[in-house]
Amino acid sequence: MANKTALVISAHSADFVWRCGGAIALHQEQGYDVTIVCLSYGERGESAKLWKQEGMTLDGVKSARRKEAETAAEALNAHDIRFMDLGDYPLEMDKDAKFALVDIIREVQPDFMFSHSHYDPYNTDHAYATKMAMECRMIAQAWGHNPGQKVLGAPQLYLFEPHQTEQMQWKPDVFLDITPVWEKKWAAIQAMQGQEHLWAYYKNVAENRGNHFRRNSGGQAGGRDCRYAEGFQSVFPRTVDTLG
Amino acid sequence: MANKTALVISAHSADFVWRCGGAIALHQEQGYDVTIVCLSYGERGESAKLWKQEGMTLDGVKSARRKEAETAAEALNAHDIRFMDLGDYPLEMDKDAKFALVDIIREVQPDFMFSHSHYDPYNTDHAYATKMAMECRMIAQAWGHNPGQKVLGAPQLYLFEPHQTEQMQWKPDVFLDITPVWEKKWAAIQAMQGQEHLWAYYKNVAENRGNHFRRNSGGQAGGRDCRYAEGFQSVFPRTVDTLG
Amino acid sequence: MANKTALVISAHSADFVWRCGGAIALHQEQGYDVTIVCLSYGERGESAKLWKQEGMTLDGVKSARRKEAETAAEALNAHDIRFMDLGDYPLEMDKDAKFALVDIIREVQPDFMFSHSHYDPYNTDHAYATKMAMECRMIAQAWGHNPGQKVLGAPQLYLFEPHQTEQMQWKPDVFLDITPVWEKKWAAIQAMQGQEHLWAYYKNVAENRGNHFRRNSGGQAGGRDCRYAEGFQSVFPRTVDTLG
Amino acid sequence: MANKTALVISAHSADFVWRCGGAIALHQEQGYDVTIVCLSYGERGESAKLWKQEGMTLDGVKSARRKEAETAAEALNAHDIRFMDLGDYPLEMDKDAKFALVDIIREVQPDFMFSHSHYDPYNTDHAYATKMAMECRMIAQAWGHNPGQKVLGAPQLYLFEPHQTEQMQWKPDVFLDITPVWEKKWAAIQAMQGQEHLWAYYKNVAENRGNHFRRNSGGQAGGRDCRYAEGFQSVFPRTVDTLG
Amino acid sequence: MANKTALVISAHSADFVWRCGGAIALHQEQGYDVTIVCLSYGERGESAKLWKQEGMTLDGVKSARRKEAETAAEALNAHDIRFMDLGDYPLEMDKDAKFALVDIIREVQPDFMFSHSHYDPYNTDHAYATKMAMECRMIAQAWGHNPGQKVLGAPQLYLFEPHQTEQMQWKPDVFLDITPVWEKKWAAIQAMQGQEHLWAYYKNVAENRGNHFRRNSGGQAGGRDCRYAEGFQSVFPRTVDTLG
Amino acid sequence: MANKTALVISAHSADFVWRCGGAIALHQEQGYDVTIVCLSYGERGESAKLWKQEGMTLDGVKSARRKEAETAAEALNAHDIRFMDLGDYPLEMDKDAKFALVDIIREVQPDFMFSHSHYDPYNTDHAYATKMAMECRMIAQAWGHNPGQKVLGAPQLYLFEPHQTEQMQWKPDVFLDITPVWEKKWAAIQAMQGQEHLWAYYKNVAENRGNHFRRNSGGQAGGRDCRYAEGFQSVFPRTVDTLG
Repeated sequence: MANKTALVISAHSADFVWRCGGAIALHQEQGYDVTIVCLSYGERGESAKLWKQEGMTLDGVKSARRKEAETAAEALNAHDIRFMDLGDYPLEMDKDAKFALVDIIREVQPDFMFSHSHYDPYNTDHAYATKMAMECRMIAQAWGHNPGQKVLGAPQLYLFEPHQTEQMQWKPDVFLDITPVWEKKWAAIQAMQGQEHLWAYYKNVAENRGNHFRRNSGGQAGGRDCRYAEGFQSVFPRTVDTLG
Repeated sequence: MANKTALVISAHSADFVWRCGGAIALHQEQGYDVTIVCLSYGERGESAKLWKQEGMTLDGVKSARRKEAETAAEALNAHDIRFMDLGDYPLEMDKDAKFALVDIIREVQPDFMFSHSHYDPYNTDHAYATKMAMECRMIAQAWGHNPGQKVLGAPQLYLFEPHQTEQMQWKPDVFLDITPVWEKKWAAIQAMQGQEHLWAYYKNVAENRGNHFRRNSGGQAGGRDCRYAEGFQSVFPRTVDTLG
Repeated sequence: MANKTALVISAHSADFVWRCGGAIALHQEQGYDVTIVCLSYGERGESAKLWKQEGMTLDGVKSARRKEAETAAEALNAHDIRFMDLGDYPLEMDKDAKFALVDIIREVQPDFMFSHSHYDPYNTDHAYATKMAMECRMIAQAWGHNPGQKVLGAPQLYLFEPHQTEQMQWKPDVFLDITPVWEKKWAAIQAMQGQEHLWAYYKNVAENRGNHFRRNSGGQAGGRDCRYAEGFQSVFPRTVDTLG
Repeated sequence: MANKTALVISAHSADFVWRCGGAIALHQEQGYDVTIVCLSYGERGESAKLWKQEGMTLDGVKSARRKEAETAAEALNAHDIRFMDLGDYPLEMDKDAKFALVDIIREVQPDFMFSHSHYDPYNTDHAYATKMAMECRMIAQAWGHNPGQKVLGAPQLYLFEPHQTEQMQWKPDVFLDITPVWEKKWAAIQAMQGQEHLWAYYKNVAENRGNHFRRNSGGQAGGRDCRYAEGFQSVFPRTVDTLG
Repeated sequence: MANKTALVISAHSADFVWRCGGAIALHQEQGYDVTIVCLSYGERGESAKLWKQEGMTLDGVKSARRKEAETAAEALNAHDIRFMDLGDYPLEMDKDAKFALVDIIREVQPDFMFSHSHYDPYNTDHAYATKMAMECRMIAQAWGHNPGQKVLGAPQLYLFEPHQTEQMQWKPDVFLDITPVWEKKWAAIQAMQGQEHLWAYYKNVAENRGNHFRRNSGGQAGGRDCRYAEGFQSVFPRTVDTLG
Repeated sequence: MANKTALVISAHSADFVWRCGGAIALHQEQGYDVTIVCLSYGERGESAKLWKQEGMTLDGVKSARRKEAETAAEALNAHDIRFMDLGDYPLEMDKDAKFALVDIIREVQPDFMFSHSHYDPYNTDHAYATKMAMECRMIAQAWGHNPGQKVLGAPQLYLFEPHQTEQMQWKPDVFLDITPVWEKKWAAIQAMQGQEHLWAYYKNVAENRGNHFRRNSGGQAGGRDCRYAEGFQSVFPRTVDTLG
């Protein structure tokens, strides 16, 4: 039987590392095949350090960013990373680009998906990526889109943690214990050579989300000793057989 | 080993039937011991039909309401229903009443709890009950409250479905399949002799929540054939080991 | 047949003038009997000018405030103004006070009611008054409260305009044309001798709400030539036979 | 004198039936001319049952969907239904499409309009249609758009009921009694042969909205005996001469 | 050393007058160079009075609107007003238009920026302009956009006051005392010959915002005697060395 | 001339350390006199470690908590810390307690105040403290409360950072650079012997808020090199003479 699958839709090629690197590594360990889609390399807007190098070109930046992302994916034990190279700042997707993303969604048939917060006044590419994730999820569910293909079910869409959460109207409703794979995430973070100023920041985030995990699993009266966690906001309600 | 437990905090003695009767019956089947606390009988404000009877008294109403609630609990196979008789319209709890509720919470040590929506402009008792549920949950977690007693962990608080959901700012994030216990819930509903005008209403609700369950579990592309469901809004984030 | 009725619940004795004086005068003209309830005189917190007078006492302030309110009510052609004298800054209502307000609600049997915004960080008495209005409306609907009395139906509760609307999370959904009674409202405003600094402010408000009325009734393509208006936020949905 | 008019802007060709079929039939009875605009047929995304038929084509689906919609409109006694055939999943409108919709709005000069909820994470076409309705309403009000044409006034825009209301941030502020035309709506619903799984669902909705109508018009103390209702959310404030 | 700078992004050519004319004049007095960008003339949608003139043409309207805006800018002592002539009702910006706006942002290097509210159901151009302001601010910060140019820092984006604030979800968090420059703003307002119906409205707004300034600076216990003010909503958090 | 002053209203005796210790130390350095009011010791609910000691008593806990808080205040160079000993879990304030807090507010005449977030489902004492802060601020402004006393102006109320910010609906709008006093805050944190599990957590918070400060003051294009910061949410709008 085929593995279970998950799909990450990342606006820029580093987002998946900071925001759901732990979830990727953990589910790979659990037997999922996780596909990472980078809509752009973040080549214009998220590569300040590279652009400060003498003689840098757009292709040079893309190439460096791609290499970093591939290294990070490898550190997370993820084997399927795809670069749609749609451009950034601004990221824009025409109907062809949308349908290409739909093709991937249908191919992967993810059990759940990841993307950015609904709102980000600092970085409109992020919210745009989520808008596209929702639109393409809908198209993938249409029986009249490429009739004969297997249509998509109703995978959850998890919004991973943005920078400056409170400004983004982002509220996590689930914390995932990533302690078992923290070393992998930390290695992936260190692969982001161009954004070293964020390493310690996201280590702090992982530790503090670990505190939230402990509190919400029982605190001083029986909470689990989670050291590192990631938080996610669910777009859709869950369907369950028990509330326990 | 002791059974798992759950606790329902119901402002009036009929609320638990319409709003989480399915969850009660289902978890009883799953081996949980579910305790139902009725803060009041709803004797003043939710017993119009009884008050229209010639010569009715407050004690007469309470007694009739209690009997109905006990019959309903029995239909749900719940064996522990408690009546705090705190009065309704308005429901008010002083420190003694709060501590009595804390005693129950600590005794039950629920894995999860239920109460009303945060807001209800039609029925301020409902929102007040939830406020009390949150406050007493906090007190039950205090190591300095009755030192030596077992303190409470961090049980989820599920807000069950209010009447006119959209006016109550209530948004379900989880749907529970209650098909296997629907007959029990339907029997419990019919035990509410004084509110027959609500029977068909809550049958419709259960059927339509079943539709939502089907959609969110996959829709026409693989959704589960759930016939009846209940919706709940979670107050606290979940802590998990997998997102699948 | 008895007249139609309306009920204003005003935290302090001047609030009804600025916030719904036009509605009072207009509905009096339309044959309604409007009852105004002042929960307090605003004697401690809204009478700065009086307190600056040499030798002023609490009773002196109350007396002056009462006189102003009665004069204003008269200017609005309202014949039923009641002072519950419950104290202000803070306003607090125990069960007796609540039941006294319920008695008035049941006596008046209002077709609609008025009170303050849900939230006011500057003036917690205002939000408290609305909380009480909602709670007492609910009690008045209880068949078990003073059985035999006529129970209340489901009157709309209109939240009238607070000061600094945007800070109060107040959003008007209905504009009432008060042009025909503006002179009465202006006279009532001028009865508020102790708060002359607010006269021009609320004249500006009335004029600008007139502009909103014109825009929402058609603007430059047929809007009605309203000169003065008042805005209200409805707590409950309307029930109608036509949407036109 | 010309009849009063209303305009429905429906993303897909079946939406108008479930969501405002009662309002259409009722206002037709009241002498309104209601125009229904279907931006698309919902041919790709809302026609699963048709696509499951052997050898189905896009044109075949459109044709079947059109026929169903026409039959439904007829059942509602609506004589003016128009199909813009703009495509679905995703629905996209360029400037020509917008101006074509503006032409219709100006031609109809509606007293009020209908469209979808502001937000729908399941179906981005729905929110897009409302965005277009607001944008085209604005253009239709511009004196410089096709100067000489009659410009639009300020018709209310009613957002009709979406599926899974709570997930859509939709809150009804008006309930319309559709009891007198329920048989017509039920006939229209049954015309939707391809979506039989939704018939009972929307019957339940109509019954339960009837309950809400009864409660908000007085409940057990005088509420009107409405059996079926529809709910709507108003985008703009109302302008009135009385609050009664 | 170069002056400090500010940048106004105005959807239509009159918006800057009503909404931040005081801020413009005041900061010009304080030594700032304020650049005003009018994305369109508002020629189609905000020029009803001009279109009512016999034989008016689009160019005629634009020309009249431009003259008015230039006169107003002069009255405010602003020397740099630019007209992008992108069209209105609807305003639409393709990538070229966005990059042209980015060029201006980078040229100006504003210490702070102004634009419209996030939401406006009456006028979708307004919200669109703010969306563009945020997107172009982001692009201007990208090191890979026109490498070698000076990239933008992190200027505050102030959302100026919309018409009918409560309908726009706009909440001011800062009030600016414009008393010293009121005469200039009043002169600029009067330059808007085509919209005389708004003069008194915005005078009322300025006076009432003055009241809000007085209250929030101390009220009757020491508030500053501000006569005229403007309110703004900040998009981004402030960074400070003291909270006093 | 008297120093400027600030007032912290802390529900439990440790809250001021984690949440605004930096602001206290910094403003003390700037010549402010900062008064810290601890409404309770957090003796029942926030002293788990102490209660685990053999033979601990309520007085023993209070005494230990008081000592820790005094040590922390000293580390922050704050000389005025007051313990109202009102009890916790739940914290409740009757009119006497409110008036005692009003007395302090009037005595201090703060230029600005601090308290908790508006909402906290984990800890209802926190939201209650803020409710009291707003109510007592209002009473302190009343000319009729203890006439003759100096009434309060309109100090800002800053809501300091709660635990699990996103669950508390808390959004910071101002970041304060506390780098110059970080060593003092760190010493104060370490005075909290009973809550060592929170030390690293709040160090992470301070570092990450430093990142937010850098970003919002210009980021890689000129942001200030802040190492540690605190975030606050303002309840009231600011009144300013310049937006720069």
